[in-house]
Amino acid sequence: MSDRVKTAVQPTRAQDYPEWYQQVVRASDLAESSPVRGCMVVKPWGCALWENMRTALDAMFRETGHSNAYFPLFIPLSFLRKEAEHVEGFAKECAVVTHHRLEQNSDGVLVPAGELEEPLVVRPTSETIIGATYAKWVQSYRDLPILINQWANVVRWEMRPRIFLRTTEFLWQEGHTVHETSEEAWEETIRILDIYRRFAEQYMAMPVLTGEKTARERFPGAVNTFCIEAMMQDRKALQAGTSHFLGQNFARAADISFQTRSGGKEHAWTTSWGVSTRLIGGLIMVHGDDNGIIVPPRLAPDHVVILPIVRAEKDRESVMSYCRELADGLRSRDYHGSPVRAIVDNRDKNAGEMGWEWIKKGIPVRLEVGPRDIGKNAVFVGRRDRDPKERYSEDRDTFLAGVTELLDEIQSGLYERAGAYLAANTSAIDDWNEFQEFFTPQDTVKPEIHGGFALSHWCGGAECEEKINQELSVSIRCIPRERENDEGGSCIVCAGRSPQRVVFAKAY
Amino acid sequence: MSDRVKTAVQPTRAQDYPEWYQQVVRASDLAESSPVRGCMVVKPWGCALWENMRTALDAMFRETGHSNAYFPLFIPLSFLRKEAEHVEGFAKECAVVTHHRLEQNSDGVLVPAGELEEPLVVRPTSETIIGATYAKWVQSYRDLPILINQWANVVRWEMRPRIFLRTTEFLWQEGHTVHETSEEAWEETIRILDIYRRFAEQYMAMPVLTGEKTARERFPGAVNTFCIEAMMQDRKALQAGTSHFLGQNFARAADISFQTRSGGKEHAWTTSWGVSTRLIGGLIMVHGDDNGIIVPPRLAPDHVVILPIVRAEKDRESVMSYCRELADGLRSRDYHGSPVRAIVDNRDKNAGEMGWEWIKKGIPVRLEVGPRDIGKNAVFVGRRDRDPKERYSEDRDTFLAGVTELLDEIQSGLYERAGAYLAANTSAIDDWNEFQEFFTPQDTVKPEIHGGFALSHWCGGAECEEKINQELSVSIRCIPRERENDEGGSCIVCAGRSPQRVVFAKAY
Repeated sequence: MSDRVKTAVQPTRAQDYPEWYQQVVRASDLAESSPVRGCMVVKPWGCALWENMRTALDAMFRETGHSNAYFPLFIPLSFLRKEAEHVEGFAKECAVVTHHRLEQNSDGVLVPAGELEEPLVVRPTSETIIGATYAKWVQSYRDLPILINQWANVVRWEMRPRIFLRTTEFLWQEGHTVHETSEEAWEETIRILDIYRRFAEQYMAMPVLTGEKTARERFPGAVNTFCIEAMMQDRKALQAGTSHFLGQNFARAADISFQTRSGGKEHAWTTSWGVSTRLIGGLIMVHGDDNGIIVPPRLAPDHVVILPIVRAEKDRESVMSYCRELADGLRSRDYHGSPVRAIVDNRDKNAGEMGWEWIKKGIPVRLEVGPRDIGKNAVFVGRRDRDPKERYSEDRDTFLAGVTELLDEIQSGLYERAGAYLAANTSAIDDWNEFQEFFTPQDTVKPEIHGGFALSHWCGGAECEEKINQELSVSIRCIPRERENDEGGSCIVCAGRSPQRVVFAKAY
Repeated sequence: MSDRVKTAVQPTRAQDYPEWYQQVVRASDLAESSPVRGCMVVKPWGCALWENMRTALDAMFRETGHSNAYFPLFIPLSFLRKEAEHVEGFAKECAVVTHHRLEQNSDGVLVPAGELEEPLVVRPTSETIIGATYAKWVQSYRDLPILINQWANVVRWEMRPRIFLRTTEFLWQEGHTVHETSEEAWEETIRILDIYRRFAEQYMAMPVLTGEKTARERFPGAVNTFCIEAMMQDRKALQAGTSHFLGQNFARAADISFQTRSGGKEHAWTTSWGVSTRLIGGLIMVHGDDNGIIVPPRLAPDHVVILPIVRAEKDRESVMSYCRELADGLRSRDYHGSPVRAIVDNRDKNAGEMGWEWIKKGIPVRLEVGPRDIGKNAVFVGRRDRDPKERYSEDRDTFLAGVTELLDEIQSGLYERAGAYLAANTSAIDDWNEFQEFFTPQDTVKPEIHGGFALSHWCGGAECEEKINQELSVSIRCIPRERENDEGGSCIVCAGRSPQRVVFAKAY
């Protein structure tokens, strides 16, 4: 392991960031492309990561009163037509089921048969189908609020798919709530935004900016869309979660109405919100390095891998039993409410090779254990947040006693490192020339390298927003919610009056 | 509650079993039909029940070395063509995606557009698409075994849908494993069958028969199919889980081959196995009564509901605080590795009405708490496995101390009751007239009522099997694996030599 000179992932981030991303997905064994264009196979390591994300988010949803339910995969075409803006935003990229049978034609070839009277769209998102159900459930203010979430697969046809970031099928959760008043729906929208922010920070160790989307970037049919935005290591933004205040738009379209306390009849107020397997793409690009991914301990499928070093057959049994005991010792420690997840990698393979596999997979801690270590009652520790060469011997009991603190230290170290990167690549810019230069690649070979996030003034006009997008491929990522000390200024484009700075960036 | 004369569910099981089923699904708030024909909405109570099933099964899969992964929803049509028997068995009932866009036609109507070169089938099961991926993963015997499971939605077009039992879309798990030898694949098939049996018995409190399917009932493309079969209260059988030994059939179709230890090349041996939301249908029909469903404690979303009885406003605070403390006391007890799940139902509703809602939902234990109970430091206990009128007062601390034993007692009581029902309605029958009479409804109004399971001899011939099916709508549910004391006999139809008795029944 120590005499390796190359990085484990080729090319490096600096050489070719987009290609590094593809290679690191492969090297980390998270997922791969499937034979179905645009659809991915999420491999066990990636699936376990997603399940840990799911478990953590699910607990946060439950704590705030939400339940899970499951709604149909298919949406009748007529449902999509009901919300005009919504269909405009989604209709272009749907998988459409038109037949419900396969039959052999006269040449003996299997062809679609049994044409449906009404085509069914594979859900790109479920506001319309869930809304139709809620319309039946809601009669009176007593039936409110409805606070439901579903974990599901959704399909949006992608012409240029990219694993985790933009796939035709992806996994997500979608919350859909119904409220009596605008205020309650608004509070819910912000409550969920806050859950997403805390999840990103505390579990993913990923600092995020939160704020509102401009009309241009809003969810089709929403009144307001709020988001969390993170900075990747190529300084581009990734929208990592959205929470929508839908006003009465979808309630009107689906006729979700209720008898009010005063005996009248009103349309309800709804919200929807979601995060997806795209988060895994964010996690890769925030923490990954040239040796693979780095999984924050709070989400890691395994925390510690133990690598037995058996050079002579006579040592095998003593090494293996030391390793097994060590694993048991680790599993008896509590890390944020569950046991430390430790595994012994006892495959019949070179320990160095196995070590590199685990580095690429981003496991937080590696322990090598050979006869020498046993002699000293020690373990040889490698931390994934440090250089692979920087390993150290530690007394076994000291290591065991401190393992959860070590994991917490790795977790907070990742968060701080990402925070420092975000801060270092965020600039308040008030001059158009400087703004242009900030977003102009410094190297034509690597068009992705540029300044990062610009905090600049914007007049609120769609023309100025559009001009920046056309000329620089830069969009407004969000209008921060709380900019208490923002004194107002002049729009970076037109010099018109601006109430506050907004976040400009190139984005995934 | 006590002066109620009618049953909570109408009609009763005895009056009209199929209609009772529909009504009990509704009354228990588990699920409902959706606006999409054949697809259901799984409501929060049903979803939580499924999640508990998932958690328990998932742990059993993990203990036996399996990992979860996720594969695409879509299967290219050409993949289905590869395994001839398989496509024959599934092609008739598939949702087919033929377009990937919606566009407005010249009349302004939204229509499917962007026709796909190759249609995609929404997975009815994933052997073919997973097989194509495994073919890439498997090169050498060193890559084996592959032990993977996925939790997913699948679609099989149903002309006569019935919630949980037969729906167009349903949720399930499907395991897909690859092995070096026939023996290993065979062991895996049986290992999983045993997991299914243990899950049914220990979690669902549902006794099952296990055995092998006849060729007629086999999974399309499998060499052997094993199953667990349970008896519903109308004495029909429900196939509740299947484990398939696929031999080399699918490996050949997908070209999953590997370099053997001796340097040769061979097709691998595969298995697949699954259980689905159909289990919920089984749970309803095994334990449900004329007041709703009864959820076995090991799977119950909540174990204990506390119903505060507040008749005078002045008592509210003392009653509520007593209830909250009681809930905390319950939650501090460990029931099979997790806290007892207790909730206080503090809706502004009549306590009797709320009590009946919970009876219909099948929660194992109800506690009523009013000022009088508080005065005695007591709780008023209702068990779902007893008559709703049969309630009793118990000292609070005694109840708390014994709650997990109470839950275990309810769990095992349900299992014993179902076991007694199965035994009482299973007969060894050796005479054709008796056999016919056994399966002939005694009441033309209730055609579903008949004898139950017949253990009879069968020669192994497809003609005899077919004759029974044609004449009596009875099928062979399984050939029991271990019938040590089976002495052989004469086929119930043709009197030909039979090696052992098999299980005949009407089935869902």
